[in-house]
Amino acid sequence: MSRTDYFRDPDAPPANSVVPSVTAVVRDERGNILLIHKTDNDLWALPGGGHDVGESIADTVVREVEEETGVAVVVEDIVGLYTDPQHVMAYDDGEVRQQFSICFRARPTGGTLRTSSESKEVRWVSPTDLEKLDIHPSMRLRITHGLDDSRAAPYIG
Amino acid sequence: MSRTDYFRDPDAPPANSVVPSVTAVVRDERGNILLIHKTDNDLWALPGGGHDVGESIADTVVREVEEETGVAVVVEDIVGLYTDPQHVMAYDDGEVRQQFSICFRARPTGGTLRTSSESKEVRWVSPTDLEKLDIHPSMRLRITHGLDDSRAAPYIG
Repeated sequence: MSRTDYFRDPDAPPANSVVPSVTAVVRDERGNILLIHKTDNDLWALPGGGHDVGESIADTVVREVEEETGVAVVVEDIVGLYTDPQHVMAYDDGEVRQQFSICFRARPTGGTLRTSSESKEVRWVSPTDLEKLDIHPSMRLRITHGLDDSRAAPYIG
Repeated sequence: MSRTDYFRDPDAPPANSVVPSVTAVVRDERGNILLIHKTDNDLWALPGGGHDVGESIADTVVREVEEETGVAVVVEDIVGLYTDPQHVMAYDDGEVRQQFSICFRARPTGGTLRTSSESKEVRWVSPTDLEKLDIHPSMRLRITHGLDDSRAAPYIG
């Protein structure tokens, strides 16, 4: 299914749906961050995805990170809430979904790095290499918040 | 519309919907907490309600607290995420909504205390008086978390 992102775009269609979703900032013992090279839009991103009925939001994080990267994690903290009504995603079935994304910190506990249908590359990226990668501005904001250990409270936006 | 809460009840119907909602822990300068006496189920509760398409989650908090209590607030922090799939709410139109609630700390900035169609009493309650009030266990958990200033990270459940 194709997806078009509208970010503070006056031509964006009006949202008609909200589905809570998650992203995860997962760092290894050297401080590198787990990123995926997405199949659908060719951008680099934090692993994550939509909440399914019947699971807790921590379950969603664990499931999506495992599905997209092979890495097992436990959820530790909240990086922030990203619910900007001016960020919508239009799907070709007519759904226009307003961003409603919660970003978590999670700790790797095992698993083996692998790709998936949604992630053509999966990599532990050094924070100094982030500038070289093509990352959506809204995703880069979450990564910046997630790497900033001086933040006392989660971002609410 | 009537609503039935099922909390860790083996006879609960399966959830078929998720709507993000909020509650707010609002305290005055004496440390008292803003509670409403709900019209629909006769219980005491934190003010709050469901997220509407087109607003940020902080907008939801400000709107719901004002609607239910008359008090104007600014959102300051996250108390926790409450997404237990074993807590569902069944409505008489067939919707069975899984709990997906975010609890915030918010600071009062003005307004005038008043009731609403959803709140037959609105009161600043001393923490020492909380035991006397009839409060749902899932709501009492959020109040306990919200009053505990020693918590370093939000609850994730």
